[in-house]
Amino acid sequence: MTFNGRDLISIRDFSKEEIYHILDIAQGMVPIAKGEKRSDILKDHILATFFFEPSTRTRLSFESAMHRLCGNVINISGVEGTSLVKGESLADTIRMADAYSDVIVLRHPHEGAGRLAALHADKPVINGGDGAGQHPTQTLLDLFTIREAFGKVEGMNVALVGDLKFGRTVHSLSYALALLGANIHLVAPPILQMPKESMDHLAGLGHKPMASERLEDVIPKVDVVYMTRIQKERFDDPTMYARIAKLFTMNNEMLKNAKDDMIILHPLPRVDEIHPEVDQTPHAWYFKQAFYGVPVRMAILALLLGVVK
Amino acid sequence: MTFNGRDLISIRDFSKEEIYHILDIAQGMVPIAKGEKRSDILKDHILATFFFEPSTRTRLSFESAMHRLCGNVINISGVEGTSLVKGESLADTIRMADAYSDVIVLRHPHEGAGRLAALHADKPVINGGDGAGQHPTQTLLDLFTIREAFGKVEGMNVALVGDLKFGRTVHSLSYALALLGANIHLVAPPILQMPKESMDHLAGLGHKPMASERLEDVIPKVDVVYMTRIQKERFDDPTMYARIAKLFTMNNEMLKNAKDDMIILHPLPRVDEIHPEVDQTPHAWYFKQAFYGVPVRMAILALLLGVVK
Amino acid sequence: MTFNGRDLISIRDFSKEEIYHILDIAQGMVPIAKGEKRSDILKDHILATFFFEPSTRTRLSFESAMHRLCGNVINISGVEGTSLVKGESLADTIRMADAYSDVIVLRHPHEGAGRLAALHADKPVINGGDGAGQHPTQTLLDLFTIREAFGKVEGMNVALVGDLKFGRTVHSLSYALALLGANIHLVAPPILQMPKESMDHLAGLGHKPMASERLEDVIPKVDVVYMTRIQKERFDDPTMYARIAKLFTMNNEMLKNAKDDMIILHPLPRVDEIHPEVDQTPHAWYFKQAFYGVPVRMAILALLLGVVK
Repeated sequence: MTFNGRDLISIRDFSKEEIYHILDIAQGMVPIAKGEKRSDILKDHILATFFFEPSTRTRLSFESAMHRLCGNVINISGVEGTSLVKGESLADTIRMADAYSDVIVLRHPHEGAGRLAALHADKPVINGGDGAGQHPTQTLLDLFTIREAFGKVEGMNVALVGDLKFGRTVHSLSYALALLGANIHLVAPPILQMPKESMDHLAGLGHKPMASERLEDVIPKVDVVYMTRIQKERFDDPTMYARIAKLFTMNNEMLKNAKDDMIILHPLPRVDEIHPEVDQTPHAWYFKQAFYGVPVRMAILALLLGVVK
Repeated sequence: MTFNGRDLISIRDFSKEEIYHILDIAQGMVPIAKGEKRSDILKDHILATFFFEPSTRTRLSFESAMHRLCGNVINISGVEGTSLVKGESLADTIRMADAYSDVIVLRHPHEGAGRLAALHADKPVINGGDGAGQHPTQTLLDLFTIREAFGKVEGMNVALVGDLKFGRTVHSLSYALALLGANIHLVAPPILQMPKESMDHLAGLGHKPMASERLEDVIPKVDVVYMTRIQKERFDDPTMYARIAKLFTMNNEMLKNAKDDMIILHPLPRVDEIHPEVDQTPHAWYFKQAFYGVPVRMAILALLLGVVK
Repeated sequence: MTFNGRDLISIRDFSKEEIYHILDIAQGMVPIAKGEKRSDILKDHILATFFFEPSTRTRLSFESAMHRLCGNVINISGVEGTSLVKGESLADTIRMADAYSDVIVLRHPHEGAGRLAALHADKPVINGGDGAGQHPTQTLLDLFTIREAFGKVEGMNVALVGDLKFGRTVHSLSYALALLGANIHLVAPPILQMPKESMDHLAGLGHKPMASERLEDVIPKVDVVYMTRIQKERFDDPTMYARIAKLFTMNNEMLKNAKDDMIILHPLPRVDEIHPEVDQTPHAWYFKQAFYGVPVRMAILALLLGVVK
């Protein structure tokens, strides 16, 4: 098992053992991510964050991760990124990142961009989200958070809630949860069910998720509720949208029958799908989850750069 | 008197003693800000500069301050910042800064945003300007500059000139000047007089400023002329604007009867309110003032982060 | 020969000896630029990259150069830069960079902006391209690449190809090649010939370049082919453009009669003027050339900041 020089494009590129190893390394990074301990293991290194669409949390948590380990960052984002997408080929742009840095995080609107970039770079490429494709570091921080809460992922009951059709996050996460032996509950309205491709990946791992259309029925049974946003644009009929969005909104009323130690996760940013009143309950783990993006990305950077084994 | 972990939202949150202490610490930072001496007291720290409207000098002087002390910076600004303002709640955005950094500078178009941010962050929040509200680090660097020029603030005669109604800078500064015992001269056209709220703050400190509508009359009497821009948009009648703006424009002719050691300040950027010919006179202290933004912000960062007492 | 505190505005400000000295220092920077060796000679320094028009390679290679030597960077670019161009004077903006950093790279849409900036800054100003004017660090990295390939510049046959009229890059480069004793071949369509001013500079050095309108004829004779883009906007007639652009496009067919060790350079980004199939040939040196931007800019920064003699 070696990570030195590898790319991180899809969570499916990694074995169960490799995933656990990343989580273990991330565990050790937590005090450094909090600024309680100091490390300069990446002081000789430059991270290129090339963001061709906005993703503030992903970008800033990678940059924070790099700085916590005394590394440096060069960045393209915003308008500059957008105009690059229109101009030269992605291959040439990535060769530039390759020449000026030691490791590259790419966020791109087109599915498959991560894999393409990895082909043209000698340095490790980390997929920071490519359109409807993959976002593996999000999945790793989701798994890390579940393990922090319960000490394990295996055997945990995890509800994936909301838009399971278009929500990239849940496609990668469901695969990883199945690989690590969690039990998956799919909770979505009929028109936003998990697509066949993702269901096939689960079947390939011998996993058959439970399914429900009512969040209230599922909450009492599970350890983790993973919320995602249902976007208005998916519906032709705005009253239909309003009715359904309400059913998939988390609030304190919904939580009445939850287990005491049940945790709510969300990739953030949220809009209306979790009421702010929930933030005050012990179930609200989504801000902790956002923080865990830092130690998990520290672990990934250190492993791919070969400074940690 | 402790600064460790505190927020800096309004100059009115600080006592006279605390303000002087910040200025004293800033004094010691000057050679480091000039690059003549080295310090790495913030090497373990990350500053988040979250700018939801542009303010290039404020942002860059904070970033320079952080780097001079070997700290790191993560940043949101430009279009990315603007789109965030429209999307998730400020509370959630600030929690992100809180998770990824050790100290936060917020610039925001809405009055009260600084105070709101401080409520949702565990880490110190510095108000880098919130709409018509406060901009306390600007006030501190203004005070620092006056003290550098004259060795003290108490008893100095300071003219605040131009737009005293909408100019946020002069509201905070007038309060601080009164607190520190300076004598204030207000010089503004009738429609741009200091608002009642700010006058009440001065009265609360037992201070009654002098007032004039003619800059020429005031210049010979004062030690400091603090210029601000009169904006065309404030006037219905463009000829009225042109006539008034001319009266509140500083040029060498205006300076004929000034005291030899009188200094001119300006928060910058300037447009036409100070003629470039003034730059060559010994009265021009506005570029020095801009530089002093660095040592003052170094002091603030070091104090709030608890590495300096 | 001293570089400490000097500006770098035009390649014509430097003597042959000075150019060679920069290339020698750059040579020593290569292993550090690759991350194979470590240096912290700029750890106390701040670079301000003020980009008032986009130039991603120039900006990122300067930032990478600074980080490789453990220096820090503050930056204006994108929309923020654009709005600054419209607001305060360049003189005032540059004074801000001067106050907050130790060395300044300026990219600006207007010819002469670099020279103007240098007048108003105490710190060294590096011209990162000013409109139709100069871009001296590009020229230095071009020269460095030729010397890396052949061990020398003197006596080499260099074809400058494409748009020699509007292409800023080739104006500076042709001067420097003549100064260093290379033989220049100009290869351009009639309407895109090298302007009189640049021809006069060459004549002033006693150099008379060869000229041709056919790339195929020139390729077998030269050691270096320096490609530039022919822009559609330069032509009234789109069919004329298409016909000419094709004649000035590099592909493997064109390379049949090239010398074995001939190298192709390009300032990048490219669009269609070099076919991607050429990337796989040993002639393709343009990506190496882009990388050499880092060690060359490291040398320039270290020399102007006086940490290297």
